[in-house]
Amino acid sequence: MTETDTGGRVAGRARKRRPDGERSRNAILGEAVRLTTIEGIEGLSISGLADAVGMSKSGLFAHFGSKEELQLATFETASVMFAEQVVEPASSSPTGHERLRQLVENYLRWIQGPNPGGCFFASLAAEMDTRPGPVRDRVVQFTIEWLERLETTVRDAQAEGAIDPSQDPAQLAFEVEASLFLANALFVVSRDQTPVERARHAIETRLAAASPTPS
Amino acid sequence: MTETDTGGRVAGRARKRRPDGERSRNAILGEAVRLTTIEGIEGLSISGLADAVGMSKSGLFAHFGSKEELQLATFETASVMFAEQVVEPASSSPTGHERLRQLVENYLRWIQGPNPGGCFFASLAAEMDTRPGPVRDRVVQFTIEWLERLETTVRDAQAEGAIDPSQDPAQLAFEVEASLFLANALFVVSRDQTPVERARHAIETRLAAASPTPS
Repeated sequence: MTETDTGGRVAGRARKRRPDGERSRNAILGEAVRLTTIEGIEGLSISGLADAVGMSKSGLFAHFGSKEELQLATFETASVMFAEQVVEPASSSPTGHERLRQLVENYLRWIQGPNPGGCFFASLAAEMDTRPGPVRDRVVQFTIEWLERLETTVRDAQAEGAIDPSQDPAQLAFEVEASLFLANALFVVSRDQTPVERARHAIETRLAAASPTPS
Repeated sequence: MTETDTGGRVAGRARKRRPDGERSRNAILGEAVRLTTIEGIEGLSISGLADAVGMSKSGLFAHFGSKEELQLATFETASVMFAEQVVEPASSSPTGHERLRQLVENYLRWIQGPNPGGCFFASLAAEMDTRPGPVRDRVVQFTIEWLERLETTVRDAQAEGAIDPSQDPAQLAFEVEASLFLANALFVVSRDQTPVERARHAIETRLAAASPTPS
C-alpha cells in the first residue's frame, strides 16, 4: 500500500532481476512518476532522471533501453499506485453507494499526495491528448476505464436501491468525474483545500438528488 | 469577430508597424495559438513557428525578440479570441440567467473550434501549472477571472430572482466550470459530441435545481 511497494505488477521483465535491482527500479520509477507531473512525460529523459536519482546514465540504461520504455514503465508504476491508493481500498466496501463515496474520497486524497503536479493521469492526459502513440493510447484507455468504473459503481448502487433507476449512470459518472477533475486542476495551482471541498460538496449534493427518496 | 481579427488588443508594440506587418503578425500568432494546443507553449519555438508559417527565422525575430515574448504575445492573442468568441457575444444578453447560458454555449463552441487541442487555456494551464513564470501567472489569472465571471453572472441571476438566493454563487460557478472543463478534455481525445452533450445536460439540470421555484 506504500508508494514504493509497486513490485506486484511491474514484474515481467523485473522478475529476472535480483531483489536489489528490483528495489532500485521501483525507486527510480517512483521518482519518474513525480517528475512527470512537473515536467511532463515528454520532458522525462534518461539523463534527467539519472541526475534526480543520483545514478549514472549508463546505470539507468541497464533498467530501461529507451525513452519510450521508460515512459511506459513510468505509466505502469503510476497505474499500480492508483490501483493501490484509490481503487483497491474502495473495493472492500459492501455497497455500491459506499464504494462510490470511497472512490471519490480516495481520489481527492490522491491528488493531494506527494506529486507536485497532482493527479499523474490528468497531467499526462492533457500533455498527450494530441500526440499519437502508445503512451497516449494508454492514458486514453485509463480515462475510459475510470469513467466506466464510476458508471458501474453507480449501476451497483441502483441495483441496491440507493440511486434512483431513472438516473443515467454514464451521465452521473461524468458529473462526479467533472468535479474531481476540476478539483485536481485548481488544487495544483492553489494548493488550497477550497476546490477539494467544492468537489466533495458538489458530489454529495448530486448523489443526494439522485437518491430514490429525496430527503 | 473572426479569428484573425485580433488587432484591437495586441496593439502597443504593433501600433508602430505598417498594416502589412500587423496583418502578418496576427496571422503568425493565430498559428502560434493553434500549435500551442498541440505541442504545448514550451514546445513553441521561433524556428518551429517559422516553418509552420513559411517565414524565415530572422523574419520572425523581427516580430518577437525572444521565446518568452512570443509566448506572451500568443497568450494575449488567445485571450482576445476568447473575449471575442466567448465573453463578448454573451454580454448583450439582457439577463444574468441568459448570459450564463450564453457563456456555457459559447464555451462549448469554443472547444470545438479549429484548435486540435481544444481550449487553449485548459491546455496551457495543465502544461504550466508547475512551471513558475509570467506565462503561468497569466494562465492562473485567466482561470481566476473566468471563474469570477461565472460567479458574478450567477449573482446577477440571483438579483433578478432567476436563481435562488440560498445558492452559493462560487459553488455554482465551480460546478458549471467542472462540466465545461471535463467536456473539453474528453472532446479533444474523442472528437465526439457525447461529452459536450453531457456537460450541457449537467449544467441545465443544475441551473433548474437552483431556480427559486423548481418546476
